[in-house]
Amino acid sequence: MTPKPHGAGHLLGDPHHDGSSLYVSTLVPRLGESVTVRVRIPLGFAERGVHLRVVRDGEPRMSPARLTEVTDTDRWYEAEVLVHNPVTSYRFFIDAPGGYLWLNGRGVFAREVPDIADFRLTVFEPAPVWMTDSVVYQIFPDRFARAIDDKPLPDWALPAEWDDEPIGSGHGVATQLYGGDLPGVREHLDHLTELGVGTVYLTPIFPARSNHRYDATTFDRVDPLLGGDEALIDLSRAVHDRGMHIMGDITTNHTGSGHEWFTTAQADRSSEEASYYYWTDDATGYVSWLEHASLPKLNYGSAALARRMIEGPASVIGRWVAPPYSLDGWRVDVANMTGRFADQDTTHEVARTIRATMAAVNPESVLVSEHFHDSGADMMGDGWHANMNYSAFTRPVWSWIVAPDSAVPALGLPTTLPRRSGKDMVAAMRDFDAVVPWKVMATQWNMLGSHDTPRLRSLAGSLEMVEVAAALLFTYPGTPVLFAGDEVGAQGLNGEHARVTMPWDDPDRWDSDTFEVYRRLIALRRSSEALREGGLRWVVVDDDAVAYLRESAEESVLVLVARAPWAGATLPGSLVAQGSAAQNLYGGAPLTASDAGLALPGDGPGVQVWRLR
Amino acid sequence: MTPKPHGAGHLLGDPHHDGSSLYVSTLVPRLGESVTVRVRIPLGFAERGVHLRVVRDGEPRMSPARLTEVTDTDRWYEAEVLVHNPVTSYRFFIDAPGGYLWLNGRGVFAREVPDIADFRLTVFEPAPVWMTDSVVYQIFPDRFARAIDDKPLPDWALPAEWDDEPIGSGHGVATQLYGGDLPGVREHLDHLTELGVGTVYLTPIFPARSNHRYDATTFDRVDPLLGGDEALIDLSRAVHDRGMHIMGDITTNHTGSGHEWFTTAQADRSSEEASYYYWTDDATGYVSWLEHASLPKLNYGSAALARRMIEGPASVIGRWVAPPYSLDGWRVDVANMTGRFADQDTTHEVARTIRATMAAVNPESVLVSEHFHDSGADMMGDGWHANMNYSAFTRPVWSWIVAPDSAVPALGLPTTLPRRSGKDMVAAMRDFDAVVPWKVMATQWNMLGSHDTPRLRSLAGSLEMVEVAAALLFTYPGTPVLFAGDEVGAQGLNGEHARVTMPWDDPDRWDSDTFEVYRRLIALRRSSEALREGGLRWVVVDDDAVAYLRESAEESVLVLVARAPWAGATLPGSLVAQGSAAQNLYGGAPLTASDAGLALPGDGPGVQVWRLR
Repeated sequence: MTPKPHGAGHLLGDPHHDGSSLYVSTLVPRLGESVTVRVRIPLGFAERGVHLRVVRDGEPRMSPARLTEVTDTDRWYEAEVLVHNPVTSYRFFIDAPGGYLWLNGRGVFAREVPDIADFRLTVFEPAPVWMTDSVVYQIFPDRFARAIDDKPLPDWALPAEWDDEPIGSGHGVATQLYGGDLPGVREHLDHLTELGVGTVYLTPIFPARSNHRYDATTFDRVDPLLGGDEALIDLSRAVHDRGMHIMGDITTNHTGSGHEWFTTAQADRSSEEASYYYWTDDATGYVSWLEHASLPKLNYGSAALARRMIEGPASVIGRWVAPPYSLDGWRVDVANMTGRFADQDTTHEVARTIRATMAAVNPESVLVSEHFHDSGADMMGDGWHANMNYSAFTRPVWSWIVAPDSAVPALGLPTTLPRRSGKDMVAAMRDFDAVVPWKVMATQWNMLGSHDTPRLRSLAGSLEMVEVAAALLFTYPGTPVLFAGDEVGAQGLNGEHARVTMPWDDPDRWDSDTFEVYRRLIALRRSSEALREGGLRWVVVDDDAVAYLRESAEESVLVLVARAPWAGATLPGSLVAQGSAAQNLYGGAPLTASDAGLALPGDGPGVQVWRLR
Repeated sequence: MTPKPHGAGHLLGDPHHDGSSLYVSTLVPRLGESVTVRVRIPLGFAERGVHLRVVRDGEPRMSPARLTEVTDTDRWYEAEVLVHNPVTSYRFFIDAPGGYLWLNGRGVFAREVPDIADFRLTVFEPAPVWMTDSVVYQIFPDRFARAIDDKPLPDWALPAEWDDEPIGSGHGVATQLYGGDLPGVREHLDHLTELGVGTVYLTPIFPARSNHRYDATTFDRVDPLLGGDEALIDLSRAVHDRGMHIMGDITTNHTGSGHEWFTTAQADRSSEEASYYYWTDDATGYVSWLEHASLPKLNYGSAALARRMIEGPASVIGRWVAPPYSLDGWRVDVANMTGRFADQDTTHEVARTIRATMAAVNPESVLVSEHFHDSGADMMGDGWHANMNYSAFTRPVWSWIVAPDSAVPALGLPTTLPRRSGKDMVAAMRDFDAVVPWKVMATQWNMLGSHDTPRLRSLAGSLEMVEVAAALLFTYPGTPVLFAGDEVGAQGLNGEHARVTMPWDDPDRWDSDTFEVYRRLIALRRSSEALREGGLRWVVVDDDAVAYLRESAEESVLVLVARAPWAGATLPGSLVAQGSAAQNLYGGAPLTASDAGLALPGDGPGVQVWRLR
């Protein structure tokens, strides 16, 4: 595409719109309701007029926008979007000398563009505010903390000492057992409170035959090795008593081959359970996840499976979000493959059914998908509330902050992670984000790592670069998600190798400086409504530095993140009220406008955040 | 996005793949079949290896490609795509110094990209070769030729003399009647043969209350004003006798308010016909196309409507493609809105039903949609074979060749058509094309105008620029479609104003030079397999000139089109066999490689076409 920049050294000369409340009157319109949308055109821009383009029943309609306000910096235009379809897409037409421009979710274009990056309004409820306003803390139960001392060792397990380095590949990678448990989590909730996180997300807790438990043998009870059902009830209560939330992790795509349903199905092909799986004539005799025979794939063509697994309060999905367990939501493993097989594609129906079950049992619960790749088409918001945002966040940020000499592999690709420019990072973020309605994009689970990736510290190479990355995590739209251990400098070269234990008693592995960076950045986010809920306006997109504005009606915050020294930029002085200075919130000095404007320093690497209003 | 060019002044240094038979082994794989795909990497490119990325059940899989051939110019890699899903998408991963690259339908990218521009294989049959190998000639029956002299004037009609200028807006625009008819078409088939076209496409021929007949009063018979059923049978026979084909035009989205179904429905809300429409409580009492009360919208939620209109041999769709009428296909009006209303979206089901009906009655028939805008999501090829390609062809080409002083309106937009660069033209073409499987893209109905647009001649301003545009039409992948009159220089400033009569007896309106340009370009296309069926490889994308290769296994044709003088370019001499010259096929001199390479001349405006092999 051909963006048409109008500023010099910054992008504040471009027209702007996003889905935040500064620009859109109604977050969850009813079908048939009109929503007022606003667009700002900087004063230097020579537009002759602005029109709104809305797609209705497959056909675009044009209507003129009204000039409603002129400020010191912008002309504001306003128009009405009739939400005639459940997902209604729109963009702006800007009549300008030299030829009209389109403004869509990817920016400003001086040519025809497809509808894929249109802004979108939907009639669907977004994730509840408790999730988006909090920071999520991911716990891999076997590695977090051990409170029950004498546990029987299962026959498949390879016992490990708490300070052992995890096996990264080959024998033992899935069976090395450290023995962490749910009472262990409960004992360390103070750590979470001190850090400032609000949501605990537990990877699977059902009985299984591996340390990761993604190969459940039943969905009916909590693994006794973790403390059993009572331990979950206790933990849930303790978490809720602190005003925090707790989420589970479910494999809707498959079970373990040791699952009670699967053993019944194999023993009796006329059983109801046999309808839950896909049977084949090949060597294993059934379809499984990525051809791993230990993980037979579930078949949602079976109405009986749907009832047992996802539909109604008695289903697996429903039961655990109800008291006494009271999980506040599910993270769904391999959501992108769930319900998809050959010419069958029922992923959206499955997602909507899960959502409906959860809404009926626990209206404030959330549903988050794992789609490691391009999830855009699945994220209109009628099913999954949000996705684990590897594509629009983790990958682009990683490629920007990775150490030049890093040998960390690129996720799932047959090479090491390359170092890319800030322009490439932002282009990728915008490309993936633009497809998704703002209210979904603003709740996505942004991560700098998970139990499936190398550790941030290992690829960043220094605390300095960890801070740069973490600053993006805690100031970008979305729900920040942190993998336990990142906050104390945990290292690891691949997903399995990075599942290190929390070093509660090992000062060598506990980096207090890293903890302080995380604690301060989380506090920064919690202190700012604009950082949690504001719009996103790119200000600088340079090879080595990026800056953006997060703006709400009450507050405007400027975030500047540099991975290296850069040229700096001069922004319009009108960004701050005349005679006043922008308050520094993190990592620098106040910013004062001179006659030349507001000078953004070219320091780097580093993070600076200011409140402009 | 960030394309990464590797050539200098041309793009032949870039890796390339497209869906043509040079690169893909099987056009219509069965579900579960493996297809061999090939990619060419120019010798100057320092790749360390190539991998294939295929999305299977929502999850990307990577597999190494094999180096299978090294030629004077390229290294060729090969891999297998398992067509596990009906639409299977893939792209190439190129491991290269400085960081891996992705090759997708939009080009080469040095960053992560969404799946939307992936290449696609599908299990669906493309349009039959008779259509793609031919040129389509669009006829608006009232304006083509009049053979029946004394016809009764309908009560709604405003009679016009054959040489009157059409009314472009206001009173009379839809009622001005010239009286063209089907015997008139039959009398002038020699003109079509001389021009070289192979398919006659008639806009609607059912009785109506307008000159355009998109407001049918019945679908059961041909308008007596056009000669009735017998005239269609005669015309169909005459067309087929010449080895040509004939297509009709149907409004699946709506009927006229005078339609027999609608009058029955209005008279009796308990009738079957009442279920065919959407009834409301507002002033008109029903939903209609773009709120025009004369065009009530059809409701495919009604199974009875589906049976009557689209399902089975006795349906409207089925009846006219059967003998004795034997239409070879339908162009479907407002296909983008058909089956879409509020929270109902059954467009794909409707399209598949129409396709199945036609395939059962007349297996060689074609189904072409009118989607004036971004049709990408509707064009996987299971429903519509092809679309009227305004977005990926008409609009981009128009904006490149429009006269600088043109006041022709931009289609459907509140401004005049702007003049854009060749880079913008190609970026738009690639963006819209990349979403569509190659075998659909290579059959799309490319146009330089229709009964809904201004005339090409009026916006181009000169025959010279008409030739530039027409050269693109007849050398680009897709099915060239020509609106009757364009070939003799017809003019007109908007869709209605451009519906001029054929000036059979008016030498002042019959431009023989234009006819000769069209005749020669059509003959050029017919003489070259590569132009009809070859791949598409961009060679030059400049502000004022573009060049591309159309290549099949047997033939390689280079097309150079310039709207103005430009800098020229030097291509690798290896494009032509050593010591030989490239044969000029159109508009220039032979090209001979020197030591420096193959010099593309910087002349313009103009068209030059060479056969390299």
